Amino acid sequence: MDAGRLASSLRGGDRQALAKAISVVENDWAGAAALLKAVGPPGRAFILGVTGPPGTGKSTLVGRLVRAYRKRGMRVGVIAVDPTSPVTGGALLGDRIRMQAYAGDDGVFIRSMASRGWSGGLSRATSGALQLMDAAGFDIVILETVGIGQADIEVVAVAHAVLVVLMPGLGDDVQASKAGLMEVGDVYVVNKSDLEGADGMVVSLLGMLSGSKGRSAPVVKVSALKGDGIEKLEAAVDAVRVRFDRSPELRLHSVRGMILETARGDAMQRLERLSAPKADKLAKLVLEGKLAVSEAARMLAK
Amino acid sequence: MDAGRLASSLRGGDRQALAKAISVVENDWAGAAALLKAVGPPGRAFILGVTGPPGTGKSTLVGRLVRAYRKRGMRVGVIAVDPTSPVTGGALLGDRIRMQAYAGDDGVFIRSMASRGWSGGLSRATSGALQLMDAAGFDIVILETVGIGQADIEVVAVAHAVLVVLMPGLGDDVQASKAGLMEVGDVYVVNKSDLEGADGMVVSLLGMLSGSKGRSAPVVKVSALKGDGIEKLEAAVDAVRVRFDRSPELRLHSVRGMILETARGDAMQRLERLSAPKADKLAKLVLEGKLAVSEAARMLAK
Repeated sequence: MDAGRLASSLRGGDRQALAKAISVVENDWAGAAALLKAVGPPGRAFILGVTGPPGTGKSTLVGRLVRAYRKRGMRVGVIAVDPTSPVTGGALLGDRIRMQAYAGDDGVFIRSMASRGWSGGLSRATSGALQLMDAAGFDIVILETVGIGQADIEVVAVAHAVLVVLMPGLGDDVQASKAGLMEVGDVYVVNKSDLEGADGMVVSLLGMLSGSKGRSAPVVKVSALKGDGIEKLEAAVDAVRVRFDRSPELRLHSVRGMILETARGDAMQRLERLSAPKADKLAKLVLEGKLAVSEAARMLAK
Repeated sequence: MDAGRLASSLRGGDRQALAKAISVVENDWAGAAALLKAVGPPGRAFILGVTGPPGTGKSTLVGRLVRAYRKRGMRVGVIAVDPTSPVTGGALLGDRIRMQAYAGDDGVFIRSMASRGWSGGLSRATSGALQLMDAAGFDIVILETVGIGQADIEVVAVAHAVLVVLMPGLGDDVQASKAGLMEVGDVYVVNKSDLEGADGMVVSLLGMLSGSKGRSAPVVKVSALKGDGIEKLEAAVDAVRVRFDRSPELRLHSVRGMILETARGDAMQRLERLSAPKADKLAKLVLEGKLAVSEAARMLAK
């Protein structure tokens, strides 16, 4: 692979070059680092993180947003973060299939990326894919997670704005406060607005938001399935995008997030390489009372 | 703090000593390492991990199990892993209050522990609390997570057996296959059995389980709220406990998990100490095109 040529192809709008470049970065193939260096500095595209508990309809909502932005002539990239089973390591094809609805449109580029449960391997790949899509000239990159873990925290770290998707009728412990979502959203969406309790939920969210340090994130009620409320959501996101366009601090925040997540991914990768036989030997010594767990952990990491 | 004296008090059944010891370990106070060394090797208590998506009623189910085991005269410890907001850092009081129902019973010890979103700080604290409860002579320690992240993977790493709690009526993407839960359970619970679709879910789980490498984990339908099906669940868990009693390999697996999670926590703690001003400086250099993100990450970690 010629990193310089691949970088200039994808900057020129070559979709296949972009797809190949993301694979290089996702799989950490030789030349990945050179490629990310060759595409140049990030900071043009608006990165919209979409997070929230599983089952709230994030993917459907992202589909609505993609269509809405396309109507306005914007080029839209989507990175859908799939959780990969820690045991089988297999990627989930469901999302990929669902996303093929836009396959014919050159202004849309969608990529599912597997998050690697144990290792935090997501970080570097996601951060890399974001840089590549940014270089490829997309106006907006939507970063969607499935809402079950570490990936959501990473989205907050690298996004310019975060859209938190909730729905009525989930148990208390599914809701935003528990997952730490009340502090991270720039826009809150109550999806499935035809379900009972939607209005009550909007009220309670507004109450919680006003209670937390005077934040005033908007709460928008939508039905992603029916398409209700999408214009209002677009307007709310637009208001945040205006802030982004004016704020070098937001761009800095995102790049800082990419650096930190990459450092985290590096550290996890080092840990993953730790020898399993060595861990077994140390575990035996711990069981025999010859070593404390913390001592064994230090010896393992050495 | 005299680590040796505190260790011997908690081994003698002193609840206040145990509570204090867990605080020492949770907050990583001076003497934490000495204390964990002084309590001696782990390996006596049966560690039952309880995981599954949020909202499936894990806490209520754990309450049922605690009562059931107490009736049989077993001493039960519970560690409920709370997610802490990455922003406020505050612990969630809800679980703690709920758990006070058993406060008068000396055979039950319940502790909520905050998981620290960014840092993986959960690992070391949970692993330490497990060692302390084991040393305090509990027959069974139930490790309950809220099902929204990294903590669940850690539960699988250190538990002797894993109980996966699901419920009918959640969207496809909430379910076990996506979260990698189909590979990790020793017993599957379909909770809220009075909801529509419970039987269908049992059938589909059995189908998925038989499809995955000949595993034969039982699927038990319960209503934790009403108390239906709890005896069947007890019997299913008992069958796994018998395996544990006979298997030195299972004990080894758990200790290996504690070592790995502790090493992971150590690495995350080192990353957390990274200087924020340095990250800002590096982010500026990246935005100016003078440094790639991966180079900045390496420089930050140094």
